[in-house]
Amino acid sequence: MHDEKILKILRTNTDIHTSSDELCKTTGITRAAVWKHIESLRKEGYDIEASPHLGYKLVAIPDSLIPSEIRWQLKTKTIGSAVISYKKVDSTNDSAYALAENGIAEGTVVTAEEQAHGKGRHGRKWESPPKAGVYMSCILRPAMAPNEIPKITLVAAVAVTKAIRRFTGLEAMIKWPNDILINGRKVCGILTEMKAEQDSIDFIILGIGVNVNTPGSCLPKGATSLREELDGFSKKDNLSRIGVVKIILESLEEEYSRLRIKGVKPIIEEWRSMSMLPGAKIKVLLSNRTIEGEVHDIDSDGSLMVRLDSGVFEKVSSGDVVMLR
Amino acid sequence: MHDEKILKILRTNTDIHTSSDELCKTTGITRAAVWKHIESLRKEGYDIEASPHLGYKLVAIPDSLIPSEIRWQLKTKTIGSAVISYKKVDSTNDSAYALAENGIAEGTVVTAEEQAHGKGRHGRKWESPPKAGVYMSCILRPAMAPNEIPKITLVAAVAVTKAIRRFTGLEAMIKWPNDILINGRKVCGILTEMKAEQDSIDFIILGIGVNVNTPGSCLPKGATSLREELDGFSKKDNLSRIGVVKIILESLEEEYSRLRIKGVKPIIEEWRSMSMLPGAKIKVLLSNRTIEGEVHDIDSDGSLMVRLDSGVFEKVSSGDVVMLR
Repeated sequence: MHDEKILKILRTNTDIHTSSDELCKTTGITRAAVWKHIESLRKEGYDIEASPHLGYKLVAIPDSLIPSEIRWQLKTKTIGSAVISYKKVDSTNDSAYALAENGIAEGTVVTAEEQAHGKGRHGRKWESPPKAGVYMSCILRPAMAPNEIPKITLVAAVAVTKAIRRFTGLEAMIKWPNDILINGRKVCGILTEMKAEQDSIDFIILGIGVNVNTPGSCLPKGATSLREELDGFSKKDNLSRIGVVKIILESLEEEYSRLRIKGVKPIIEEWRSMSMLPGAKIKVLLSNRTIEGEVHDIDSDGSLMVRLDSGVFEKVSSGDVVMLR
Repeated sequence: MHDEKILKILRTNTDIHTSSDELCKTTGITRAAVWKHIESLRKEGYDIEASPHLGYKLVAIPDSLIPSEIRWQLKTKTIGSAVISYKKVDSTNDSAYALAENGIAEGTVVTAEEQAHGKGRHGRKWESPPKAGVYMSCILRPAMAPNEIPKITLVAAVAVTKAIRRFTGLEAMIKWPNDILINGRKVCGILTEMKAEQDSIDFIILGIGVNVNTPGSCLPKGATSLREELDGFSKKDNLSRIGVVKIILESLEEEYSRLRIKGVKPIIEEWRSMSMLPGAKIKVLLSNRTIEGEVHDIDSDGSLMVRLDSGVFEKVSSGDVVMLR
């Protein structure tokens, strides 16, 4: 409590020092107690300058996904209404899933600095080196039937793509079903999991993994990170992962509200405008065979419409897309 | 191990006594050890007659859902390939769900003598008094997309209805979406839950609750039990719950295989023949309103087609049906 009060005062006065006296007055605790709280904030990674005569000044916030930092001036009502941050978990999706099974509220977000077993689609691995990326999962409880889940995946892809565009200014694109690419290389993956009854979704776990500062040497083939793509950006400086989380949460809330109010149609239109251009030559690996053709469109249920080389159209609801040149 | 060997010998010789000597010879253990195993079987509820000169004879098996009893001569390959039985659980669906999350194989069945918080659809309660009914959950892992889950619910409804008909000779009927009624009163409920990714089901938990020997005084309004409906059956005698479990597992395997081989069409046709007659006057309670009309048909995706009083058709994928007269 006092930590947060002190932090709030320092945060709003980053250009000047705040005297011990003032901190004592506002928090109602002694000078010694103020000092103890400053020390505890420093342990969390806050860089606080202390001058015997002038008092305290916040110089830098830590490069850690601390809930209070994520929630600081976050412009959302639901998404991120609670944030739970771990140093290391097996998978944020698994942690969020367990919390959701125990009834935790919609909008709760789980983040981790590192994942021991980060998950991709269909049991694949998602590389999650410590403090390099954003590994987060958001709990949603939409009043929907399970066959409507592609709507949520579309919302997530649109929201995260917009967030990455806003944050970096780079032209992030969606690769069906829910990868996000910059310059043709994967920078973000989305994994949607759910628990449902036959006719109603209990909850959805929206897992979002973004390679933020991940160095090229730690990235799997075909992958990239935001920092790698930002040419002018000094390779020594890290991008703010907290900033990435916040912009994603805000974008997610916007699109999720829009889905509720206006339905899926405008989402699909935006998805189209941000996805691989219609006409791109692709190969699709299905569970039991491979097809080749060109991208025709996306269907209202989230399926990919492929125009096969034979001229026949095929609707694909599950598979992996490989771009051909 | 020795328990099971001894039980097998006694089981195949229920008309004569089996001597201690023979049991010793077949199992390779001492007379004293044989006696200890007989005692342990008796503790489980097996009624074994012991005669000093003649030996042992199995008189009755216990009225408990013991895995070895359920698996005894069970004619299935997958469904019931493993059976896990509890005295009391919160909910067999929750127990099975936790097992499935840990990767347990398809076909594994969880049963309980009693449920503290037996679950119905949409968070409702399923009354589960001790040893009165069959409370079981089966883990399925079909290679399907989540929007195909109604197929599994149709399979379950058809399989369990057939099983109840075979077991009792009574004309059990399906009430959409997945209740089973005898003489208009509910005798069985099916709760389908799943964990899935956007485009593939991880697993399904098929929860089946049957009121078998439940006395009328313990039944909620509108419900009945198999014993209550079997007129000629002495109210003192209990029906074999083990028998009910076995016939359901066998029927489930039949229909589940049929779905895989022949698709959903024959299942739907059978569902139709066992469901409320087309034309029945009904009221459907939807999440936000109520509609009235008559049953027209069931759709290939498991939805109920209702012909409203206005003449318009409405497709219902989630709701509760009330029969009108």
